[in-house]
Amino acid sequence: MSESASFVGRDIVSIRDFSRRDLDHVMDMAVVMEPLAKKGSDMLHGRIMATLFYEASTRTRLSFESAMTRLGGTALGFAETKGTSVEKGENLADTIRVTENYADVLVVRHPLEGAARMAAEFASIPVINAGSGAEEHPTQAMLDLYTMRKELGRIDGLNVVLAGDLRYGRTVHSLAYALSLYDINLYLVSPSLLKMRKEVLEEVSGRIKVQELEELNKVIPEADVLYMTRIQKERFGSLEDYEKVRGSYSLTASDLAAAKSEMIVMHPLPRIDEIDYSVDKTTHSKYFKQVWYGLLVRMSLIGLVLAALS
Amino acid sequence: MSESASFVGRDIVSIRDFSRRDLDHVMDMAVVMEPLAKKGSDMLHGRIMATLFYEASTRTRLSFESAMTRLGGTALGFAETKGTSVEKGENLADTIRVTENYADVLVVRHPLEGAARMAAEFASIPVINAGSGAEEHPTQAMLDLYTMRKELGRIDGLNVVLAGDLRYGRTVHSLAYALSLYDINLYLVSPSLLKMRKEVLEEVSGRIKVQELEELNKVIPEADVLYMTRIQKERFGSLEDYEKVRGSYSLTASDLAAAKSEMIVMHPLPRIDEIDYSVDKTTHSKYFKQVWYGLLVRMSLIGLVLAALS
Amino acid sequence: MSESASFVGRDIVSIRDFSRRDLDHVMDMAVVMEPLAKKGSDMLHGRIMATLFYEASTRTRLSFESAMTRLGGTALGFAETKGTSVEKGENLADTIRVTENYADVLVVRHPLEGAARMAAEFASIPVINAGSGAEEHPTQAMLDLYTMRKELGRIDGLNVVLAGDLRYGRTVHSLAYALSLYDINLYLVSPSLLKMRKEVLEEVSGRIKVQELEELNKVIPEADVLYMTRIQKERFGSLEDYEKVRGSYSLTASDLAAAKSEMIVMHPLPRIDEIDYSVDKTTHSKYFKQVWYGLLVRMSLIGLVLAALS
Repeated sequence: MSESASFVGRDIVSIRDFSRRDLDHVMDMAVVMEPLAKKGSDMLHGRIMATLFYEASTRTRLSFESAMTRLGGTALGFAETKGTSVEKGENLADTIRVTENYADVLVVRHPLEGAARMAAEFASIPVINAGSGAEEHPTQAMLDLYTMRKELGRIDGLNVVLAGDLRYGRTVHSLAYALSLYDINLYLVSPSLLKMRKEVLEEVSGRIKVQELEELNKVIPEADVLYMTRIQKERFGSLEDYEKVRGSYSLTASDLAAAKSEMIVMHPLPRIDEIDYSVDKTTHSKYFKQVWYGLLVRMSLIGLVLAALS
Repeated sequence: MSESASFVGRDIVSIRDFSRRDLDHVMDMAVVMEPLAKKGSDMLHGRIMATLFYEASTRTRLSFESAMTRLGGTALGFAETKGTSVEKGENLADTIRVTENYADVLVVRHPLEGAARMAAEFASIPVINAGSGAEEHPTQAMLDLYTMRKELGRIDGLNVVLAGDLRYGRTVHSLAYALSLYDINLYLVSPSLLKMRKEVLEEVSGRIKVQELEELNKVIPEADVLYMTRIQKERFGSLEDYEKVRGSYSLTASDLAAAKSEMIVMHPLPRIDEIDYSVDKTTHSKYFKQVWYGLLVRMSLIGLVLAALS
Repeated sequence: MSESASFVGRDIVSIRDFSRRDLDHVMDMAVVMEPLAKKGSDMLHGRIMATLFYEASTRTRLSFESAMTRLGGTALGFAETKGTSVEKGENLADTIRVTENYADVLVVRHPLEGAARMAAEFASIPVINAGSGAEEHPTQAMLDLYTMRKELGRIDGLNVVLAGDLRYGRTVHSLAYALSLYDINLYLVSPSLLKMRKEVLEEVSGRIKVQELEELNKVIPEADVLYMTRIQKERFGSLEDYEKVRGSYSLTASDLAAAKSEMIVMHPLPRIDEIDYSVDKTTHSKYFKQVWYGLLVRMSLIGLVLAALS
């Protein structure tokens, strides 16, 4: 187990705030969480998490609430801003200074860049970012790493393919950064219109080997991890352009014929048609397993910031 | 107490999946639940129920959540699909495979026929149908039976009247089926436009004596149970047709003058004007008592499928 | 500690239902709650609060839910009427008679005058009014009193200024009444259009010294408590009239130069621009502290009506 980093009272805002040792520690604790996730625990009995979701995200909200509940704590909050003081015009800083009285940890989801950072600055209790703006979704990146470690036994040495919309998907930005702390080969596969943002690419390629491609099939035989993301119609100028691209970033079981037997397919979910149902039955499919690992990683983080773990 | 049927891990999808012995067992356990509903219990401490309500139904949702809480467990979930992944286009099967990671039992309400069955097929944990499509609402039928048993001491031998909209009301279909497992006389009272569906009628009348009528008042003196349902304006071609029917299926205290003194009036709620407030004060009125029995029956079912009871 | 008033099973509907001794007792118990609010308690383990919010109010709802949770109980309910039986046309009385089966205490918020009183009449369990119509918000008035007592050591003898919209704000009506049970001087500062309602003024001025003014700055040097409220644009006939008034009821740090050093600024929140951010950093600002005191007062009330305190 890695040397214990100090997580007590810490905000979880950006994946950039964490060292490799920090991430390893979160994952070490996620391993410890697994039996508790199955049989429950009273570790956080009497403690409260407030989930402030300014943008709806049922999956992420339920994951955090379930994590808190499995640790014996309680979750309360709001699932969207309709019907909240926010609608009456209250600003984020005031809402934070009010709700911190009701809880021991705040989980914030917000459509704007920087919102989680601002919340963390105003709150006297720990803030966990559950997604803000197009950039940051740190707990998703951590659970993605944890999925690789659990399913493949290691992260160092892997060939990791990120495929689909690398420009607008918030998940892949946090994940690319997190991966760059390990010794991996990164393949970025996307239509030219949706290439990885330049600033992310520059930062990451300073640390690890990165290759950009447009054709998904070429890289499948090399891949240890194939991380698919959704390509949204709205990103294209014409329906014609969209249809051209769509097919080649839609994975079917037959596309996996050339894959290594151990290769895993991941996806942040929800998927629409970028992974065909035929893939679900293959041994490669790990996107529902990711959900389980996400629960463990969030239990780990909550336990760490609330000082129930160390 | 009946011989113990195996409920552990079982899905509660359709009332048709249950034998008379099964239903009796659920009711036997509901009796055991009564003191726990009053003083609470830690029987399901640490266990989680996810309530997935694709169609809003506050009463049913709160009944399940209260049942889980009284047993010491925790409920989380969503109360409507606005703001959920469903809005992003995710299908039911994927949502089930995600949310089963967050809970020990799923309670699903869905506007489409067959949705609960599909959910049960995909989930590795028990699924309880809290209403799907126009056909099935098994826990409502069970609580209706339990109300009769508790209030009248038995189900066999009763004259049961189902009145109102027997065509579209999902409650009466499940209930007619459940009643047909007992030795009762069934009176179906409705305007001709809203008669019991043929397939239900055929199935049920193969097992018990069934009589169809149009006039409610005629049958009141025979009835041991008068089960009222709402007649919706939208079902009629013209407002004139609706107004003609409406009055005769609207119950007042004076309509009950001819009733047996023990006769009970039931309703799945919410009522609009099919039961006048004057009935509330009579000793016949049991529709609010039904709510209490519903809590007990749902505690029984949750305890059974999660193996806390046997 | 004051002689124990009997709160067991009592409804909390109107501030007018409480004597000074009652209010002192609620506040004495709020003091006892403070350590429990910090470390949690199992005092209400197994007990359920249903929050029936017919009008959205995230802050008030979360305050009650957090209070119940800190006492070891559980909260369930609805946060707005969209998607509830209410939408299907069910009346309040029926909803109360249903939901009382699911809980040990009901917390009701409703847009209509008298709704909480009606709920209390129908419910066999205690009802707490979390705001109804333009008149009553008793728990807000209690937490306002408690803030004064905690921050200034006493209520008797204080010069209390209520400023802003004294006509439509529901908070100030309950508060003016509560204050009139103590020996204070009340200053009512508002534009003429938004003067305190005549019936409240008459009742209160029968018991304590009341002075009505239009200019806020004049009274600041006298004040021990400056209670600001929001002035809503919609109340004015023209934007011009509104703009004229607005500035003089908007507090900045420099307005406080003439204030006593111990003077406290309060606000029911959310604020828009009636208190400038410059005030936040002064030692006078207590509006976020009010939120904390609100949690304690609600814990006190819940504990009292559920007989966990006495």
